[in-house]
Amino acid sequence: MAGVYGKLQERIRELDALTQAMGVLEWDHQTHMPPGGSAGRGQQMGTLAAIKHRRLADPVVGEWLDALEGSEDPGVAATLRNARRAYTHATAVPSALVSALSEATTAGHGAWMAAREANDFAPFAPALERLVDLIRQQVACLGEAEHPYDLLLEQYDPGSTVAALRPMFSRLAGELSGVIDEAIARPRPPALSLHVPLAPMKAINRSVVSALGFSMDRGRLDEAEHPFTLGVTPGDVRLTTHYHLDNLLSTLSGTIHETGHGLYEQGLPARPGTWTNTAAGMGLHESQSRFWENCIGRSLPFCRWLVTVLDAEHPSHGLTAEAIFGAANRVSRSLIRIAADESTYNLHILVRFELELALLTGELAVADLPEAWDDAYARIVGIRPDAPRAGVLQDVHWSAGLLGYFPSYTIGNLYAASFRYTIEEAIPDLWTQVEAGEFGAVLSWLRDNVHRHGHMMDAPDIFAAAVGDRDPVADLITHLRARQEQVSAL
Amino acid sequence: MAGVYGKLQERIRELDALTQAMGVLEWDHQTHMPPGGSAGRGQQMGTLAAIKHRRLADPVVGEWLDALEGSEDPGVAATLRNARRAYTHATAVPSALVSALSEATTAGHGAWMAAREANDFAPFAPALERLVDLIRQQVACLGEAEHPYDLLLEQYDPGSTVAALRPMFSRLAGELSGVIDEAIARPRPPALSLHVPLAPMKAINRSVVSALGFSMDRGRLDEAEHPFTLGVTPGDVRLTTHYHLDNLLSTLSGTIHETGHGLYEQGLPARPGTWTNTAAGMGLHESQSRFWENCIGRSLPFCRWLVTVLDAEHPSHGLTAEAIFGAANRVSRSLIRIAADESTYNLHILVRFELELALLTGELAVADLPEAWDDAYARIVGIRPDAPRAGVLQDVHWSAGLLGYFPSYTIGNLYAASFRYTIEEAIPDLWTQVEAGEFGAVLSWLRDNVHRHGHMMDAPDIFAAAVGDRDPVADLITHLRARQEQVSAL
Repeated sequence: MAGVYGKLQERIRELDALTQAMGVLEWDHQTHMPPGGSAGRGQQMGTLAAIKHRRLADPVVGEWLDALEGSEDPGVAATLRNARRAYTHATAVPSALVSALSEATTAGHGAWMAAREANDFAPFAPALERLVDLIRQQVACLGEAEHPYDLLLEQYDPGSTVAALRPMFSRLAGELSGVIDEAIARPRPPALSLHVPLAPMKAINRSVVSALGFSMDRGRLDEAEHPFTLGVTPGDVRLTTHYHLDNLLSTLSGTIHETGHGLYEQGLPARPGTWTNTAAGMGLHESQSRFWENCIGRSLPFCRWLVTVLDAEHPSHGLTAEAIFGAANRVSRSLIRIAADESTYNLHILVRFELELALLTGELAVADLPEAWDDAYARIVGIRPDAPRAGVLQDVHWSAGLLGYFPSYTIGNLYAASFRYTIEEAIPDLWTQVEAGEFGAVLSWLRDNVHRHGHMMDAPDIFAAAVGDRDPVADLITHLRARQEQVSAL
Repeated sequence: MAGVYGKLQERIRELDALTQAMGVLEWDHQTHMPPGGSAGRGQQMGTLAAIKHRRLADPVVGEWLDALEGSEDPGVAATLRNARRAYTHATAVPSALVSALSEATTAGHGAWMAAREANDFAPFAPALERLVDLIRQQVACLGEAEHPYDLLLEQYDPGSTVAALRPMFSRLAGELSGVIDEAIARPRPPALSLHVPLAPMKAINRSVVSALGFSMDRGRLDEAEHPFTLGVTPGDVRLTTHYHLDNLLSTLSGTIHETGHGLYEQGLPARPGTWTNTAAGMGLHESQSRFWENCIGRSLPFCRWLVTVLDAEHPSHGLTAEAIFGAANRVSRSLIRIAADESTYNLHILVRFELELALLTGELAVADLPEAWDDAYARIVGIRPDAPRAGVLQDVHWSAGLLGYFPSYTIGNLYAASFRYTIEEAIPDLWTQVEAGEFGAVLSWLRDNVHRHGHMMDAPDIFAAAVGDRDPVADLITHLRARQEQVSAL
């Protein structure tokens, strides 16, 4: 069995090297590649993807997995669970369907762009219908599950199920509405507009990234149109951000968000060839970005420390910690997910979760989606979209065939809130440390309780081991309510 | 046969995509990768190299090549010639020898570094002995040739042979000595030292690169410790340079050199899957960098135009065109190749060519190399090294197993000189254009006569088709003598 496991590990190392190479090529594409490189880059990525698929879907991999089945070594068992998922996904879906999906996402993206431009859902409808149909076929190939949506969740957040999420999400929807109503009933803190030139803007961002514990010897910070983080290996993690020179706070919250992702990637364990050395899923990944962005980055102690950074890098800023804190925590029932405040954001996700379930089961036809979207916004978010561009056409995800991805964002917020309260218990002087710009103890806690596990366990198990029997819905509500009370007390 | 050729083309496209991906990874390594990425990058490169080798050395490729043998289609025939060379190189050398060479170059590099540090050849000797022995074994595997060194030349400059180079190089050695003596007998123009801050330094370099015709939509300019140029595809060509803030001229000549390489890469034809769409060899590549760096970049008309760039980007420069021209063309019999002037540079190469031939044939033992080096410098360059670090240990090439590469540099200078005089005939107002910063006609000539051929013909044939029966040795001597006379006339 050791020989078989050795072969599997060698294959995983090869697949990881290909994945890493593709990651660097994609990072390069979004940060540095000249426009003339597009066609070549498409060929390079296509070639590597085809080789990777051939090596993963190789029948001998299935034989190795069968031979290792039932291993009592926890490391082998965890590798096997993760490898089985990847192998199944690579082999269960016929290649004709994979090609059709690939073409449909290309067509879907074009149709979505055209529809957005026209502010009209109609041009997108046939492409989305095709995509939903193909995704339903794909799900049918992937095996049995309590709910077909579970098979989509598994691709992004293995371990999460509709049965677990639905009750959490519906409790959250009910409670959140109250929190938001209370916040809106209070006087709204003023927004901030401060122009910061590029050089100090960069210096501020780099100071914050480094202070949070992100190692620049094992990572970078670059600019990208749509910020993202790439973990090539724990020794090579690449953050990107977008400098909005007229909006320091929005720039910083984006940077801190990506830093959270990056700290997770830098903290993953070195267990080459096991697939237990990766992130455990997008929900847990998002918990790391949201924890730093929201729980830490929008706190009053953090704003107090941030003022000392501004004093050093851009002395003419003229801001107070209280003004930053207020501006970073304004609440409103708004239409656009990516511009939503920390509370309302989750309602945007709940709308999408509900609609995705209905699309997948066939309860909702694509033709009826625009009306269903507007109704769901009115009912759940409390505001009715006035145009498709600010409604059903706002997200790129569905046009890229990404169904099952949205829940990760709210799973992340839920996990983050429970991490906050667990850490507050573990580090009694947490907020004093944050105000002093000391984030080492917090990071150590996350390293020990989240990062170092990699993907030995699925995310829900890592979460449970880290926070015990805490209730993440209650924690998120407590966190949001406390934050708003603090804002109004200023 | 069309079916077989199609299969070969598909395989070549796959191999090219892998080569391109490796190119981007290597570029990233040298420009952006954080230090912590090294181990992972080694694995990524190793994995891609192994896949590439497996796909190239696949016996079915040999069958396709055999089936296509004798094709009268010139495109197929050229593809076949280039593919046969690559296939032979990938299959003729036993994998144990490939591994031994790879280990020996790693060990060789370490030993060379230690020897340089100690300023003592002895620690490098055993590693170099091993390398030379393995290279001789490798050459024995590669087949028949008039001279075994031809099999090394073929890897870097296919079409060049010892029989063709030796008489050219020995005529050159004889004539050059006279040119250098004449130059040294005249008053030496003063060197220039001008500190240019980073921002105007970058602006000056970018202005020059763009003016020469390098497209920034299909390329980039970055910083690297050891400048190089990567052509991923003609649409994605990456120059690097090193900004010496205290030495504008040395910075610029490096940048212009790389721009010459980059213009060649941007001008290569689009014939995917043929291997006739690549550069025809390192000698021709070097002719493009040397032509722009030396023939154009060190000319008085260019210096006049450069002053207008300095006026725009760094008005306080205080330089005259004549001062720049003089400083860019100082001649001396010096010890270090990479710091040598345009004339003497070739003598440094001739030393290495002579020693490499003797090492490969066994006429010279590695143990006797230091003395042979010093003797050859005294005889050919006219100066005797005073320390191994400034002598036999100065170049990295041999420690990396690169025997047969050095001649490319002088082949490049020879070709460049004949290009100069052919272009002067084709464009009568060449130097008026250069003084006006107009380089379009020159670039068009190079595009038509060099770049667009890709690797349909080998470099000596491309050169002959471009310049007719010109004598490159005479042209290089004429060029260097004319340049020195112009310097002394100021």
